[in-house]
Amino acid sequence: MAKYMSMENLRFLLNEVHDIKEVLAFDKYEDYDEESVNILMDSIKDYCDKEYYPVFREMDEDPARMDNGGIYVHPAVGKAIKYAGENGMIGAQFSYDDGGQQMPIMLYTSLSHIQAAANNNIGGYAGLTAGAAGLILSFGSQELKDKYVPKMLSGAWGGTMCLTEPQAGSSLSDISSSATPQEDGSYKIKGQKIYISGGDHEYCDNFVHLYLARIDGAPEGTKGISLFVVPKFREDDQGNLESNDVTTAGDFQKVGQKGYCTTHLILGEKDSCQGWLVGAPNKGLSYMFQMMNGARIDVGMTAASVATAAYYASLEYANERPQGRKLSSDGSKDANQEQTMIINHPDVRRLLLSQKALAEASVSILLRCSKLEDIILTSEGEEKENAHDLLEWLTPIAKTYPSEFGIKSVSNGLQVLGGAGFCSEYILQQYYRDIRIMSIYEGTTGIQSLDLLGRKSTIKNGKALQLVAAEIKEAIEAAMTYDELKPYAQTLGSKLQEMQEIIMNLMQYAMKGDYERFLSDATIFMNYASHVVVAWHWLEMATKAKQALVTGNLSFQEEFYQSKIHTMKYFFKYELPLTAGWKETLLSQEVVTIMKEKELIS
Amino acid sequence: MAKYMSMENLRFLLNEVHDIKEVLAFDKYEDYDEESVNILMDSIKDYCDKEYYPVFREMDEDPARMDNGGIYVHPAVGKAIKYAGENGMIGAQFSYDDGGQQMPIMLYTSLSHIQAAANNNIGGYAGLTAGAAGLILSFGSQELKDKYVPKMLSGAWGGTMCLTEPQAGSSLSDISSSATPQEDGSYKIKGQKIYISGGDHEYCDNFVHLYLARIDGAPEGTKGISLFVVPKFREDDQGNLESNDVTTAGDFQKVGQKGYCTTHLILGEKDSCQGWLVGAPNKGLSYMFQMMNGARIDVGMTAASVATAAYYASLEYANERPQGRKLSSDGSKDANQEQTMIINHPDVRRLLLSQKALAEASVSILLRCSKLEDIILTSEGEEKENAHDLLEWLTPIAKTYPSEFGIKSVSNGLQVLGGAGFCSEYILQQYYRDIRIMSIYEGTTGIQSLDLLGRKSTIKNGKALQLVAAEIKEAIEAAMTYDELKPYAQTLGSKLQEMQEIIMNLMQYAMKGDYERFLSDATIFMNYASHVVVAWHWLEMATKAKQALVTGNLSFQEEFYQSKIHTMKYFFKYELPLTAGWKETLLSQEVVTIMKEKELIS
Repeated sequence: MAKYMSMENLRFLLNEVHDIKEVLAFDKYEDYDEESVNILMDSIKDYCDKEYYPVFREMDEDPARMDNGGIYVHPAVGKAIKYAGENGMIGAQFSYDDGGQQMPIMLYTSLSHIQAAANNNIGGYAGLTAGAAGLILSFGSQELKDKYVPKMLSGAWGGTMCLTEPQAGSSLSDISSSATPQEDGSYKIKGQKIYISGGDHEYCDNFVHLYLARIDGAPEGTKGISLFVVPKFREDDQGNLESNDVTTAGDFQKVGQKGYCTTHLILGEKDSCQGWLVGAPNKGLSYMFQMMNGARIDVGMTAASVATAAYYASLEYANERPQGRKLSSDGSKDANQEQTMIINHPDVRRLLLSQKALAEASVSILLRCSKLEDIILTSEGEEKENAHDLLEWLTPIAKTYPSEFGIKSVSNGLQVLGGAGFCSEYILQQYYRDIRIMSIYEGTTGIQSLDLLGRKSTIKNGKALQLVAAEIKEAIEAAMTYDELKPYAQTLGSKLQEMQEIIMNLMQYAMKGDYERFLSDATIFMNYASHVVVAWHWLEMATKAKQALVTGNLSFQEEFYQSKIHTMKYFFKYELPLTAGWKETLLSQEVVTIMKEKELIS
Repeated sequence: MAKYMSMENLRFLLNEVHDIKEVLAFDKYEDYDEESVNILMDSIKDYCDKEYYPVFREMDEDPARMDNGGIYVHPAVGKAIKYAGENGMIGAQFSYDDGGQQMPIMLYTSLSHIQAAANNNIGGYAGLTAGAAGLILSFGSQELKDKYVPKMLSGAWGGTMCLTEPQAGSSLSDISSSATPQEDGSYKIKGQKIYISGGDHEYCDNFVHLYLARIDGAPEGTKGISLFVVPKFREDDQGNLESNDVTTAGDFQKVGQKGYCTTHLILGEKDSCQGWLVGAPNKGLSYMFQMMNGARIDVGMTAASVATAAYYASLEYANERPQGRKLSSDGSKDANQEQTMIINHPDVRRLLLSQKALAEASVSILLRCSKLEDIILTSEGEEKENAHDLLEWLTPIAKTYPSEFGIKSVSNGLQVLGGAGFCSEYILQQYYRDIRIMSIYEGTTGIQSLDLLGRKSTIKNGKALQLVAAEIKEAIEAAMTYDELKPYAQTLGSKLQEMQEIIMNLMQYAMKGDYERFLSDATIFMNYASHVVVAWHWLEMATKAKQALVTGNLSFQEEFYQSKIHTMKYFFKYELPLTAGWKETLLSQEVVTIMKEKELIS
C-alpha cells in the first residue's frame, strides 16, 4: 500500500495547530471527544486503504460513460454509496434532528481529506447528495424534507446540483430553464443542464436534482432564478416511482476524474417533467450560494488532497530511485562512487519541497475554514459574525490556491519521476489530469478572484480584511518569541502591509467609477493574497513545531517538527518572493487586458 | 480547418526580424531564394492541412501500442514517412554530397514549426531518422555511410537514438550496455534501452539504432562510452536482411504524444546481436552531444508549436463563445444587454495574451538559434566561433522556456474554455497532455539549467554571456529610437545588468569550491535568464513592428503590427516582473535544498 496522505500531519494540524479541542468543547458536539475523533479517522483511513485507493486507477481506465442507454460507473461507486449510507456518512455533518450525526465540520473535512487523497473520483457522489439534501433541509418545506432527505441520506437516492446550461456557462443570469406553475402547486420544468456531476447511474434508485430555473414571467437576470427539486422519478398516487421526463442525454468524456460521471440532462422533452419549488420564488441563487461556499471548500480540499497524494508518490520514488552522483567540490562527478538516490539532488529536493509546501499549507487553510464553520454553527453575535466574515474572505483563496497552484505542484511531482512520470504505468500522470478540473469547478479562478477582490475585500468597509490582518498579526507575534523564526515573521509582516497598500491603490479605480480597471487584475491579486495566506499558515505551523521542539512535548518524531520548520523556510525562500513580481504588476499603470478586439488579431 | 499556426507570424519573423535574406545570400544556399522559401513553406502548410492536422486527434485515440508482437502505429505515420522520403524532406538540411537538399536551417526549422503545430505526434519519426543519419555522416566510416544513409533518407529504414537504460536514466555515465570486439571488426552488443522513440513499427523495413555502449575494458563513466550502429536486421552474405537479435519488448503507454511510439528494446538476448563502431572508441558521448544540441532545438520548437496551436484553439473559442457581460462603471451587470464574447473579459484576454506571448517569443528564439546554425555552417574564424558560443548559451533556454513555461501556457489555454477545456471533445486537453513531455525529453529542465549556469555561462570566462549581452544591448539601442518603446528598453537594460550581477554573486560559491551550492538554484537562474531572453525577443519584435508602422512599409495588416507591440507590453507588465522574485531567491543566503534526508520525512 503506497502512502497517499499523512495521518501524522492531519493530527498535528487538528490538535497542535487548529486546536480541535476548542470545537469539541461546544455543546453541540458533546458526543465527540478526542478519542472518538481518532477512532473515526482511523476507521475511514482503514476503509480507504481497502476500498478507495485500490480502485483509483481502475476507475480511470474503466471510466464513467454512456452505455446501453444508461450511465456506466465503476462498481466501486455503488459500494461506496452503500457504505456511506449505512454508516451515516452522507450528511454526517447535519444535526441529529435533520438525520445527521452532528459531526464537527473539522472532523468531516478531515475525513474528506483522507478519502479524496485515496481516490478523488468517488467522494463527489455522496458529497453532492449531501449538498442537495442540505439545500432541502435549509430552505425546503417539511413535505419536501420528509419525502426526499431520508432516502438521500441512506444512499438510496442520489442528489445533484443543476446550475450550468449550454448557452450560459458560468453566467448564471442567463439560465433559461423554465418553470410553469401547475394547479397542484408544482411546476412544469423544461430545459437542459450540462456538466451535472453524479447525475445518473445504476447504483441509486432515483436522483434528486436541485435545479435552477426561471418561473414564467420572472425578472431578468439573477433576480429571477428559483430553486426546484426535480426528481428523475416521481411518485404516483400509489407511491410507486414513475418517469418524471428527465432524460440523460450523455456523459461528458473528460481528460481527468474519469471515474466521476458528468452528465447532460434534458428535462421536459415530453412536456411532463414536474418540479417542486424550494423556498420562495426568485431566491434560488442566494440559496444555491449557501451550498456553493461549502462546495468551494470541498473542491479546495479535493485539490489539496490530490496534491498530497502526488507528493507522497513522488517522495517514494525519489527515495528509492538511484541515479547520478552528488557533485564534488569542483563540480566533477566520480563514476566509481555508488549512485545516489535522486532525493539528494538539490533540484529534485526543491521540487519535492514545493509539493510538500503546497499540500500541507492547503490542508491547514481548509481546516481553518472548517473550524470557522464550526464556530458559525455554534456561536452567536459578534463571534459568529466575525467568523462568518473571515470565512467569506478565506473561501475563494481556500478554493483557488490548492486548485490553481496545485496544477504546478503535481506537475513538479511528475517531473521528479522524469520520463517515468509521463508513463501511464506510474500514477503521477493521473493526478496531473485529475487536478486540472479543480480550478474550473464551482467558479473558475477568474471568478473566485473577482469575488475576492471585488466583494470579499471591500464589503463592510473591508472588515474581513481587518479580521484577517489581526489573525496574521497574532501569528507573527507568536513566531517572534523564537529567534529562529523572527526574520520570517518580519517578512510576513511587511508582505501583509504591502497587500493592504495594494488594495488601497486598486480601490482608487473603483472610487473613480472604473470598475473594470479595478478588477482587471483580480487574478494577480489572488496570487498575491493567497501567498500571504500560505506564508501565514506556514509560519503558524513552524511556530507550533518550534514550540513542541523547545518544550519537548512531542507527539511525533523530532524530524516531523524539524521538517515543518524547514518547509516554512523553503516557502519563504522560493515561493513568497514571487509576490514582488505580482506587486509590480498590480501597481503598474499599464493597461493591456482591457482593449479593442483587433489588438489580439494575428 | 481550424487555425493551428500563423504563416503571417512566421513570415514576419523570418523576413522582418531575423532577416533570412542574410542567410540566403550564403553561397551554400544559392539554390534558395525568397520565392522558393515561400513556395516550400506554402506547400508544407498545404500538406499539413490535408495530412497532419486531420489525424491529430485520431492518433491520440488510436495510440501506438504493442499489438500481435509488433508495434502498432497509426497508418498516417507510414504515409508521412513515405512522403518525407520521396520529397527529400528527411535530412533536407544535409549537404548535397550527403544526399540532402542543402536546405537552410532557418527554413528547415520553419517547416518543422508548421508540422509540429499541425500534429506533434508525427514529425519525430523522420526527425530522429535524420538525426541518426546525421551522426553516421559526421562520424561514421564510408562503408557505414554507404550502407545506411541512403536507405534512411529515402524513408525505407528508420533511425533512432538509444541512450536511456533502465538503471541509469539521465545519468549516462552509468550506461551498462556492453560491446565485445569480434574478429571481423564488428562488436557483439548486449543490453537494453528504454524510451526509444520511433523504435519499431511496420512502416519501415529496418531500424538503424545509434546505440551507446561500453566496449569491454573501457574506462568507467562517460569516458568509456562508444557509439555503435546496431540495425534491427543485418545483411547476410547475399545481402538479404536477417534478424540481428534486437527484440522489441514493449511500447511504453504515455499520458500524451500517444501517437508517437516509445519502445523498450532488448539486444543480444540470443548472444547474436552485432553492432558497428561509429568513429573512435570511447568518444560516443561527444558524438551524441552534437546530435543532442539539434535535438534540443527540435524539442523546443515542438513545444513552441504545441503552445502555438493551443493558442489559436483558445483564441477561436474565445472569439465565438458568448458568456456574461462587460461590467458597468459601478461594477454591476445589465442582464438585458446582449452577452459579450468571452474574449472581452479582461482575465480571459490576459490568459490569451500569456499564450500568445509565450508562443511567438519561443518561435522567434528558435529561429535565432537556427540562423546561428546557418552561420556556423557557412562561416569561418571568429564569426563562426562567436555564433557557436552564442548558440551554446541559448540552446538550453531555447529548449526549456517553451517546454517548461509552455505547460502553464497550454494550461491557461485550457482555462479559457472553462469546463469545455476539460472535456475530451475539445482539443486543448490533448495539447495539455502532449506538451508535458517536452520538459523531460533530451535532458530535463533541471539538467538544462545545470548546463546553462554551470557550463554555458562560465566557459571561456563567460564569453557567451558577453556576446549575448552585446546582442541585447543592440536590441535596446534600436528600441530607444522610438519614444513608445523607450521605457521597455530601459527595463530590459536593468534586468540584463541584474542578471550579470546575479551570476557574479553565484560564482563566488564556485570559487570557494562549493559547487553544489553554486548550482543548487540553477533552475531558478534558468527562469530568470529565460525571461530576460524572452523580453529581448519581444522588444526586438516590437521594434520591427514599430518600424514598419512608422515607415508604412507593411507586409501585413496594421493590426498585426499593433498586436506585436501590445503583446510586448503584456510581457513586460505580467511576466518580466517575476524576475524580481527569482532574484530574491537567487541572492538569498538561505540553504534549504542541500540537506540531510531526514528533513523531508513526514
